[in-house]
Amino acid sequence: MALVESKLIVPAPAGEKIVLLILDGLGDIPHPDHEWKTPLEAAWTPNLDKLTQEGALGRLVPVEIGITPGSGPAHLGLFGYDPLEVEIGRGVLEALGIGIDLTPGDLAARANFATIDDKGVAVDRRAGRIPTEKNAELCDKLRDRLDPVEEITVEIQPAKEHRFVMVFRGEGLGDGLSDADPHREGLPIPPVRALRSEAEKAARVVNAFLEQVREVLKDEQPANAVLLRGLSLPPSIALFPDRFQLRSAAIVTYPMYRGLARLVGMDIVETGESTGEEFQTYLDNYEKFDYFFIHVKGTDAAGEDGDFVRKIEVIEEVDRKLPILLSNPPAVLAVTGDHSTPVMLKSHSWHPVPLLVYSRFVGSDTAQRLNEKEAIHGGLGTFYSRDLMKILQANARRLDKFGA
Amino acid sequence: MALVESKLIVPAPAGEKIVLLILDGLGDIPHPDHEWKTPLEAAWTPNLDKLTQEGALGRLVPVEIGITPGSGPAHLGLFGYDPLEVEIGRGVLEALGIGIDLTPGDLAARANFATIDDKGVAVDRRAGRIPTEKNAELCDKLRDRLDPVEEITVEIQPAKEHRFVMVFRGEGLGDGLSDADPHREGLPIPPVRALRSEAEKAARVVNAFLEQVREVLKDEQPANAVLLRGLSLPPSIALFPDRFQLRSAAIVTYPMYRGLARLVGMDIVETGESTGEEFQTYLDNYEKFDYFFIHVKGTDAAGEDGDFVRKIEVIEEVDRKLPILLSNPPAVLAVTGDHSTPVMLKSHSWHPVPLLVYSRFVGSDTAQRLNEKEAIHGGLGTFYSRDLMKILQANARRLDKFGA
Repeated sequence: MALVESKLIVPAPAGEKIVLLILDGLGDIPHPDHEWKTPLEAAWTPNLDKLTQEGALGRLVPVEIGITPGSGPAHLGLFGYDPLEVEIGRGVLEALGIGIDLTPGDLAARANFATIDDKGVAVDRRAGRIPTEKNAELCDKLRDRLDPVEEITVEIQPAKEHRFVMVFRGEGLGDGLSDADPHREGLPIPPVRALRSEAEKAARVVNAFLEQVREVLKDEQPANAVLLRGLSLPPSIALFPDRFQLRSAAIVTYPMYRGLARLVGMDIVETGESTGEEFQTYLDNYEKFDYFFIHVKGTDAAGEDGDFVRKIEVIEEVDRKLPILLSNPPAVLAVTGDHSTPVMLKSHSWHPVPLLVYSRFVGSDTAQRLNEKEAIHGGLGTFYSRDLMKILQANARRLDKFGA
Repeated sequence: MALVESKLIVPAPAGEKIVLLILDGLGDIPHPDHEWKTPLEAAWTPNLDKLTQEGALGRLVPVEIGITPGSGPAHLGLFGYDPLEVEIGRGVLEALGIGIDLTPGDLAARANFATIDDKGVAVDRRAGRIPTEKNAELCDKLRDRLDPVEEITVEIQPAKEHRFVMVFRGEGLGDGLSDADPHREGLPIPPVRALRSEAEKAARVVNAFLEQVREVLKDEQPANAVLLRGLSLPPSIALFPDRFQLRSAAIVTYPMYRGLARLVGMDIVETGESTGEEFQTYLDNYEKFDYFFIHVKGTDAAGEDGDFVRKIEVIEEVDRKLPILLSNPPAVLAVTGDHSTPVMLKSHSWHPVPLLVYSRFVGSDTAQRLNEKEAIHGGLGTFYSRDLMKILQANARRLDKFGA
C-alpha cells in the first residue's frame, strides 16, 4: 500500500511560504586544475553559508543511484512526482523546450527537415543541416498551406538548423505511435503506425498531414521531406497545485523549464532574465502564492561548457542576490539542483546533488557550507528527489500525522 | 520479491536476550532558548554514553521521509511490521488506549455522547462535554440495559468527558462500516452502512444496538444520543512471538502501548510506574522471555508539553536507572524512540529518531554520545523503523544467511 499523502494535507498558517530555488546542474566533482575543489567549494557564498549553519544539508538522488537524468525526469522528481512512473515523451519535451504551450490531448512530435531522392529514399536525414532562417521560412510555408484533417489542426514551430516541432490538436488523438523516420539513410520514410488501438485516429491524421507536407515541399532542395519522431501526449497526472494544495508560481525564463512547470499546472509568472529580477518577482508576488519554483540556468550551462570559473560566478551571483529574497523570507527555502553537471564531464551526471533546507524546524547538523563534501554528512541524509516535497510540506507544517 | 525473513530464523544460544527500550518521542530539534541544543545533547547521560562508545548509532525513519507518524504506525514499525501495510483503525486504537483487551474479530468503535433535538437532529456532537463521572454513570446504565443482538455482545467503557468506546463481540462481524455520525451539527444521525458485503451483519447488529441505546437514553439531558466513528477490527497479522520465534514480553504501563503490544501478541508483564521498576521487572522475568519491549512515556509527554527541562529529566532518570538493567545485560539492547516529539513543535514530528544499538557484534563507529547530531554519522546509518527488527535478530545471532 502506498501512503496517500494528499489525505494528510492540512491548511498551513498564513504566510507559510515554500521556495524551491533550483540552480540547474548544481552538483559537481573535484576539478584537478582547481585544487581539486568543486565550484561550490571554490565559490565565496557568505549568504548560503549562513543559511547552511542555521538550516540543514542533505543530498538528492534524482532518479536512481548511478542514473543520469534528463531535465524532464529531474524536475518531475523535485515537483514530487516519481520520474519512473511519469514519462515525458521526446516530442512533448521538445515542444516545451521551444516554448510551445501544451494542454492535455495535444500530440507533439520532434520533426526534422530531410532530403529524399526521386524514389522516396532518405539520403540525408538532416537536409544538410539547413540554416535556422531557412527552417523558419519552411515552417511559415507549411503553416500557411496545411489544411486541418478530421478537424485536427497543427501548430508548427522552428527550432535550430533542421529541427522543428509539430503539435497536432483536436479530439481523440491517442498515444502509442511509431516514428515516421527510417532512423538511417538509404531507406524510405515509413508512415507512422498505431502501436495501440487508441492511436489509430492519430496515425491516420498524422499520415494525412505528412502527405500534404510532401506536396508542399516537393520542389524544395535539399529540404524536400519531413521526419517525425517521439510522437507523444503530455503525461496525465494530478496537477501540482491540486495535489499539494499550494498556489504555485514558476519564476523561470528558460523555455523548457517554463514548459515543465506549466505541464504540472504551475502559474508562470513573468520575470526578468537575471537572478536579482527573479527574486524581486518573488517579493512582488509573495501574497499571491504559497509555493515558488525559481530556476537558474547558468550553473548547468557553465557545466556543459566545461567552464569552472563561470560556474563559480553564477553561484556567487545567486548568493549576492539572496538578500533580496531573504528580505521577506519564506518559511521554508530549499536550495539545490535538478541534477549534477560536472565541469569535468561537460554533461549531466549521476552524482547526488547537494541540498540545503532552511526552516525554523528543519533540525540540526554540523554543516557550515553548502557543498558536495559537507552535504554527505547533512542531517537530512541522502534521499530521492521525489521525497523532497514531503520534507518541504512537513517544514511548512502542511502535513498532518499518519495514523493515531 | 520480498525476502522471507522467517525462513532465516535459527535458534539462538541460550540467554541471547533482546531488549527494545523505547523512550517515546525521543528525537528532537535544537532549541533556541537552550543554546541550540536538543534535550539529548543537554542531558547528562554517562551510562548511555558508555553504551554508545561500545555500540553503534543510527537513525530511524518511522514511516516515510517527511511523514509524521501516530503512535500506532510508529510502534508497528519498531515491531517489524510495515505500517503502510498494517492499518490500525481509529476504533481499535481508542479501545487499546483505554486498556480494552481486543481479540481477532472484535469490532471496536469510538463513541461520543451527543445531544439530539426532538426531530432527531444532532444539536451538540459532544453533549456539552459532560463530566467524565456522568459519562461513567451513563456507560454503566447502557451496560446494564443493552441486550445481545444475534448473539453479539457489547463491551462499553468510558474515556474522558463525552468520549467512550463500544466493542462488539461475536461471530461474523466484518470490517468496512460507515460512521453513525453526521460529522457536523444540524443533521440527523445516520445509521451505519456496510461499505463491503462482508460488513452487512455488522451493520445490522450495530444499528440494532443503537436503537436500544436511543431507548435507554431518551430521557437523559444533554446526553440523549450516541455517535459512533472509526468502526474497525484489529488488523489480521502474523503475531510477533510466532513471526520472530521470540518469547516476547511487554513491560509497559501506559494503556495504548500495552494495547499495541497485546495486539501483536506479546505477553503483558505487570510492572510499576517508574523506569527503575520496569528495569527490575526485566530482571525478574529474564529467564522467561527472549525479547523485552520496555516503554517510557515521559519523554513524549514532556515534548508535547513543550517542556525542555522535563524532557532532559526523563532522559537522565532512564540513564540513572540503566545499571539495574545492565546488571544482567541482554545480548542486544536497542535504545530509541517511536518518533520525534520536538519541544519546539509540542507535537509528534517527521524527524528521524536517534538509535543506539549495543551488542558484542554491532560494529563500529566514532560516536561518543547518543544524540541527533552524532546519530547522523552513526555506523548503522539512517533506515526505516520496520527494518530495525532484522538488526536486532542479526545481533542476537538469530538469523541464518540468505542463499549459499
